[in-house]
Amino acid sequence: MRDAYHEELDTLTVRLVEMTRLVRSAISRATTALLDADLELAESVISRDAEVDRIFTEIETSIFDLMARQQPVAVDLRMIITALRMGGDLERMGDLAEHVAKVARLRHPDSAIPPELRSTILEMGQIAERLVTKAGSCVASRDVESALELEQDDDAMDKLHRRLFKTLLADDWRYGIEPAIDVTLIGRYYERYADHAVHVARDVVYLVTGSRANGRAVQGAPGT
Amino acid sequence: MRDAYHEELDTLTVRLVEMTRLVRSAISRATTALLDADLELAESVISRDAEVDRIFTEIETSIFDLMARQQPVAVDLRMIITALRMGGDLERMGDLAEHVAKVARLRHPDSAIPPELRSTILEMGQIAERLVTKAGSCVASRDVESALELEQDDDAMDKLHRRLFKTLLADDWRYGIEPAIDVTLIGRYYERYADHAVHVARDVVYLVTGSRANGRAVQGAPGT
Repeated sequence: MRDAYHEELDTLTVRLVEMTRLVRSAISRATTALLDADLELAESVISRDAEVDRIFTEIETSIFDLMARQQPVAVDLRMIITALRMGGDLERMGDLAEHVAKVARLRHPDSAIPPELRSTILEMGQIAERLVTKAGSCVASRDVESALELEQDDDAMDKLHRRLFKTLLADDWRYGIEPAIDVTLIGRYYERYADHAVHVARDVVYLVTGSRANGRAVQGAPGT
Repeated sequence: MRDAYHEELDTLTVRLVEMTRLVRSAISRATTALLDADLELAESVISRDAEVDRIFTEIETSIFDLMARQQPVAVDLRMIITALRMGGDLERMGDLAEHVAKVARLRHPDSAIPPELRSTILEMGQIAERLVTKAGSCVASRDVESALELEQDDDAMDKLHRRLFKTLLADDWRYGIEPAIDVTLIGRYYERYADHAVHVARDVVYLVTGSRANGRAVQGAPGT
């Protein structure tokens, strides 16, 4: 049987996985709200972001508590520090889904997305969902191989992001400035969402191996 | 005389203040590069961001080291956790200055900023500089009153950001889509830069008082 200390550490993982579920649902609903000009769905994303923030608060509180009462070392210390960071990334992903939903709400009853761009935005939403789902699995399983795979999905997101700009800059763009601004910001939100999912996966790699191939630093930290 | 442990904690503050200096210089040079279409200056912002990243790595390494060797409690623990977070915010501010510089480089020898928007962008750059300079002073002095003042400068940034969009959406906008995209993204970079500076100041408030009025959570953490 695991002791209370290790159970608390396990609970951190459970909460992080729960955050990945909530922010996956958020980006999924935000994408649909955007494409269907669904005000109710947009509002649900905006109001439910508080739940993501609440779990992050709980994670932060547990971490302070754990560190004040225990003296975590080696992999436990890495777990605590990476949980803080992963929680921060996931909290931000919730904000970004909320930003997408707010654009949907702002343009309702119209859709902010012109017909030519609907499939690109749909794909960006699907990649975002895939990235956060994989990130959640990696957090639960601590599977380094899977965590490393997220970089490829992120490349696909960057490709779609470039395609958005190409459409906006084509000679036959006929929607004017406002939709171009909306699409530019929305593209940026999806791209950042994906970046944060990749950061979560990189933190899983760091947690397990104690070293970082790329991205964030801490090369000299204990255990590396 | 302070012991080695507390000297290490003080060094964290020194490094954070050094980061604020570097990212202030970065946004200052990035703004000038943008307005003057100065390629050399843009390149200097891009190449020198590695220095900001290096200091953040050092901070992270010191923190792991401190936590592995010591058992920080109460205000020391808060210092360590907030240093990690402030370092993360400052590292991101360096990235955002770099993003601004990259737009300047992309449009060189033209300026990405149409004449009508030069004064707005200049003001955004100045507010960004003021915010990070104040944030740096707050980190050094731990002055809660000054830290709370940053919210007002951030309101000024939001106002300028709205003015940008108003210009882009005016009937007499005659620069087409590409500059509109550039300005949309640049506006977002300055706004995010300001947000991160405000987060640094809020973390100073939390560090000193142990409580958070708004923004990030940890309400239930020890000392609150």
